[in-house]
Amino acid sequence: MTTQEVYENLLRDAVSIYSKEGLKEKLESGRRLKIKLGADPSRPDLHLGHSVVLRKLRMLQDLGHEIVFVIGDFTAMIGDPSGRSKTRVPLTFEQTRENSRSYYEQVTKILDKDKTRITYNSEWLSKMNFADVLALAGKYTVARILERDDFAKRYAEKAPIGMHEMFYPLMQGYDSVALEADIEVGGTDQTFNLLVGRELQRDYGQTPQEVITFPLLPGLDGVEKMSKSLDNYIGIDEPADIMYEKCMKVPDALLLSYFNLTTDLPESAYASLVRGDIRQAHFLYAATIVRLYHGEEAVAAAEARYRSVAAGGVPENMESLTAEPGALLTELLVRSGLAPSRSEARRLMTGGGVKLDGTPVKDPTAVLADKGEYILSKGKNKFVRIVIA
Amino acid sequence: MTTQEVYENLLRDAVSIYSKEGLKEKLESGRRLKIKLGADPSRPDLHLGHSVVLRKLRMLQDLGHEIVFVIGDFTAMIGDPSGRSKTRVPLTFEQTRENSRSYYEQVTKILDKDKTRITYNSEWLSKMNFADVLALAGKYTVARILERDDFAKRYAEKAPIGMHEMFYPLMQGYDSVALEADIEVGGTDQTFNLLVGRELQRDYGQTPQEVITFPLLPGLDGVEKMSKSLDNYIGIDEPADIMYEKCMKVPDALLLSYFNLTTDLPESAYASLVRGDIRQAHFLYAATIVRLYHGEEAVAAAEARYRSVAAGGVPENMESLTAEPGALLTELLVRSGLAPSRSEARRLMTGGGVKLDGTPVKDPTAVLADKGEYILSKGKNKFVRIVIA
Repeated sequence: MTTQEVYENLLRDAVSIYSKEGLKEKLESGRRLKIKLGADPSRPDLHLGHSVVLRKLRMLQDLGHEIVFVIGDFTAMIGDPSGRSKTRVPLTFEQTRENSRSYYEQVTKILDKDKTRITYNSEWLSKMNFADVLALAGKYTVARILERDDFAKRYAEKAPIGMHEMFYPLMQGYDSVALEADIEVGGTDQTFNLLVGRELQRDYGQTPQEVITFPLLPGLDGVEKMSKSLDNYIGIDEPADIMYEKCMKVPDALLLSYFNLTTDLPESAYASLVRGDIRQAHFLYAATIVRLYHGEEAVAAAEARYRSVAAGGVPENMESLTAEPGALLTELLVRSGLAPSRSEARRLMTGGGVKLDGTPVKDPTAVLADKGEYILSKGKNKFVRIVIA
Repeated sequence: MTTQEVYENLLRDAVSIYSKEGLKEKLESGRRLKIKLGADPSRPDLHLGHSVVLRKLRMLQDLGHEIVFVIGDFTAMIGDPSGRSKTRVPLTFEQTRENSRSYYEQVTKILDKDKTRITYNSEWLSKMNFADVLALAGKYTVARILERDDFAKRYAEKAPIGMHEMFYPLMQGYDSVALEADIEVGGTDQTFNLLVGRELQRDYGQTPQEVITFPLLPGLDGVEKMSKSLDNYIGIDEPADIMYEKCMKVPDALLLSYFNLTTDLPESAYASLVRGDIRQAHFLYAATIVRLYHGEEAVAAAEARYRSVAAGGVPENMESLTAEPGALLTELLVRSGLAPSRSEARRLMTGGGVKLDGTPVKDPTAVLADKGEYILSKGKNKFVRIVIA
């Protein structure tokens, strides 16, 4: 793609660009640009939602620009200094490095390793003293920080906002100053923070970064944004079979934006199919995504497995588990990973979700008494071969 | 005074005590207590308004306790990091030390030098890093800081509040943590900040300081609080004559509280006089204050001068200035300090406020043509002897 094509692609898919003129000028400057993406050091499992931005970054890399990830290890290591949040446990230095290695491995499935750099914001934030912090704080008024959506909402509802929290946008913005970023990209939920970076750079005498925000990919539930914790995601690290199957579940109404935002295909390759034959469009989407993350060689097998399962058949390749006669089904469900716990296994069985050789077994005390081979299944597409020996 | 008498005196004159029980317990503990008073490093000119608190501190010193002044040099050296305030010019390190020396000289007119210590909050604040600052900020919510009177007012009026400003109460409060203060005293306008110190000490695992606030002494105008910038003050460094004269101008309605708050006299010594003969009460007050700050030997002369001036006479001792024939009166007014500028001198003359040997001179071009001695006066009580030679 040429610079002009990349620019037009960004115009097409971005929600907002601050500013379009600045972006065009920088892209056409011939300089190698420094493009910043902030990364949360606590959650290294990337999904297709993250890929939206990563794929745009790849386009920019292919023009020669450098991507700089800023791992927010500084705040992650501090945790919640107010002690109010029970879930924000501080990470150790080692954990932040471990997580970022895993993060790097995942993003380089999409990005070019040679033009991808990882930085940690503790490098500059931990060196700031109280006077530096006050100088940073002095750039902003309380009212402007409280304009941020979640702050405004919480302040209006009289929910507590810790004074330290008001620093998070400033720290994130200061990262752009420390890096002298030319461009910062992110999801629309980051718009406020990205613009803080833009304004702080100006305050610190730098050319303000261009800010490009992209839509948040809706999850497979079609309601919430894609998120690991809502279990409505397609992980970029998931096995080809699972990935294929999840792609087939993308809500019809969202398939067009999934194509737009998560694949390399030109619109002409899918637009009419999506309008004409939504099932075929899903097959195309699933094949495209599996090809992207697992290579051409994985596509056929994943499709074959999906078609066999969808037809009520049993997949050829499945995990196998050996047990002794008299093994409890609930125990086997847990050992095979089909259920996270005994109690959940019991719940699944009594709910009718578990089959043995195609027949539902609702008695949670059932055992496999005789030697032989059995197919244990959960729902329509989870199968394990049980060998009683 | 005994511990019990001091405690009762504090109960009588304090506006608020947080908490009375805690204060009583600490005073009776037999420990040498550390009593904190915050000091502004930029304004070393103390007046009777400051003396209210200083005199209470002296009482506590006489019981054996130690007074620790915290000079807020840290923020003074930073100035206003937002650059919005044009008047808050940052002080140099040398200026803060110079000012505090002058401050120390003035406070030790009231306090016992041996039990008075000066500290600078840069000693601990400048050592804090970003993580320490966030830990401090995490102790407070935005809403609680915005409860402070002036913040609440400005926020409601949509006047800008710099994010750095929200740290000032926290820094002042943290000073109490760094010092492990037992008691902090201040004017009622400091109540919020003093209570922040109390709460932060609790958060940092210390016994919270007792907070005692005293009324703000109204100025000689009877309206605003006494303040150098409003020119309604009696400075504790002023010459005996000026001090005496200003004391005679205390509004009748305020004389009782001036006696209460700024003198050592027992109420029985002045209460009936204030009710019965307000002029005599003023003479007693003026003599008492001059005695406090200049010693017994200065009282008679100051009183004599005041009575002479009040009777329309000319004081015996006055400044003398030598000039050549033809000197402009406006120039002499400036040189003698009776007017701050030529234009002000002209204004004073045309307004009838300037007399030469008792006769008003309204022509601002008037000169002293002939050799000899003249008395130049402004208003009823500023006199300079002019020698034309």
